[in-house]
Amino acid sequence: MIPNILSNGQYNTVYNFLSLVIAAQLFTALFMLIGLPRILPRYRQAITVAIIVCGIAAYHYFRIFDSFKAAYVTKSVGGTGSYSQAVGAQFNEGYRYVDWLLTVPLLLVELIAVLALARSLQRRLLVRLVPAAALMIALGYPGEISGDNGLRGLFGLLSTIPFAYILFVLFVQLGRSLDKQPTAVRGTVSRLRFLLLLSWGVYPIAYLLPLLNIGGADAWVGKQIGYSVADIVAKAVYGLIIYGVARTKSFDDDPKFALAEGAETDEPFVLAH
Amino acid sequence: MIPNILSNGQYNTVYNFLSLVIAAQLFTALFMLIGLPRILPRYRQAITVAIIVCGIAAYHYFRIFDSFKAAYVTKSVGGTGSYSQAVGAQFNEGYRYVDWLLTVPLLLVELIAVLALARSLQRRLLVRLVPAAALMIALGYPGEISGDNGLRGLFGLLSTIPFAYILFVLFVQLGRSLDKQPTAVRGTVSRLRFLLLLSWGVYPIAYLLPLLNIGGADAWVGKQIGYSVADIVAKAVYGLIIYGVARTKSFDDDPKFALAEGAETDEPFVLAH
Repeated sequence: MIPNILSNGQYNTVYNFLSLVIAAQLFTALFMLIGLPRILPRYRQAITVAIIVCGIAAYHYFRIFDSFKAAYVTKSVGGTGSYSQAVGAQFNEGYRYVDWLLTVPLLLVELIAVLALARSLQRRLLVRLVPAAALMIALGYPGEISGDNGLRGLFGLLSTIPFAYILFVLFVQLGRSLDKQPTAVRGTVSRLRFLLLLSWGVYPIAYLLPLLNIGGADAWVGKQIGYSVADIVAKAVYGLIIYGVARTKSFDDDPKFALAEGAETDEPFVLAH
Repeated sequence: MIPNILSNGQYNTVYNFLSLVIAAQLFTALFMLIGLPRILPRYRQAITVAIIVCGIAAYHYFRIFDSFKAAYVTKSVGGTGSYSQAVGAQFNEGYRYVDWLLTVPLLLVELIAVLALARSLQRRLLVRLVPAAALMIALGYPGEISGDNGLRGLFGLLSTIPFAYILFVLFVQLGRSLDKQPTAVRGTVSRLRFLLLLSWGVYPIAYLLPLLNIGGADAWVGKQIGYSVADIVAKAVYGLIIYGVARTKSFDDDPKFALAEGAETDEPFVLAH
């Protein structure tokens, strides 16, 4: 549940984390937009999707930030006291789910697009991954808005089923196509899959925090920090790594391009920017 | 501590300095964005990072500006009186630290990227510089938000340790690689290092101003001016000098490019735009 009272420290912590996410998403998107001509055209689809994902996230975090600012007020001078819920405004957790419903399927599109697989294989993977990702988010929402811990646990469990299916497709079915990738990229893509698993793993932890009964406001603040950090890792950091992969593959594919970009062709260019 | 009362002059001074920083960062970023095609691709990574740094700073100064405007109100007509802290709002110093946590490591990435060193050397330098920079900022924050001068001094001292380490890496370890740089650039890079030292040196002075007991509001206003000037020099001016270095190196590397850009090839083109 959304807490009625936040201490000054709790309020500022949430406030600064929400702002940090806006900055991270916005300027990662800008970085990739400026860097788009610096990869070969065949990898620009993946980076375009990565830019859109960070852009959508920045937009929703502006909404979340404004919703949070409107939802709490303090009566004290200089904010030395505490904040309480404002009359006529409530913090809207729904923005996170609208964001995830759009961005989480796109994160999988990003991953598949950068591999530049055969079109039929790419299509076979995406018709499995995209609906599963949308279903995973949709099943989490009823638990999120419910004040009941039983319902929260139940819907958390239900949304784990499509999550497990996504992992099966990525680690088992996609695994078979990795042998055809250049050596320098194979390791990175493998690590990318683990980064996806790791960053997505933060969401269920944040989701389940209220079940631990740490105490209303602290658990809620912890959940907001958890979601914020997870969104930075899963979208911005993940996007930058995808960008690194696209650079590596561009240099591998076209040594003349690598030379113009100032890369040493004997060494793979991964993540060193 | 944040002062309860600001005179009309103090309020306007802070207001105008915050606005000056927004303008400086925003239009330095725009200048470099427009100028990106006017350097060789191998130096565009450095300038892209410089654009992102100024963009992130502009974003946070918009937030700081809004926070400052909301935190003080005046009861007098025509603003001839003084300003006092508003009910229900507090000036948020945290934005500066969120900004620095993102931008200060990137300033070092910018410096290393423009040198276009061997990739292994570049990586060796960055794994030392980036975590040290983040640690330096993180250690400053507890002292900043504490009202206690002893804690302020202690954390100021602690954050000097990673700062000293950064200087060691830049002046001793990086120094060894400078011999391989073109003559025209060697001097500029050396000066660049001193500019970094000089501009970063303003931060601890501003940080320690409250320890001098000049008087609450004056010390606080002085700190805001100091941070603002330091942010302009360390990000915008520094970025423009990096851009000048990238231009020089582009002309040195490719005389045809220099000719097309209208440079006199027998004279080094440094900082003259």
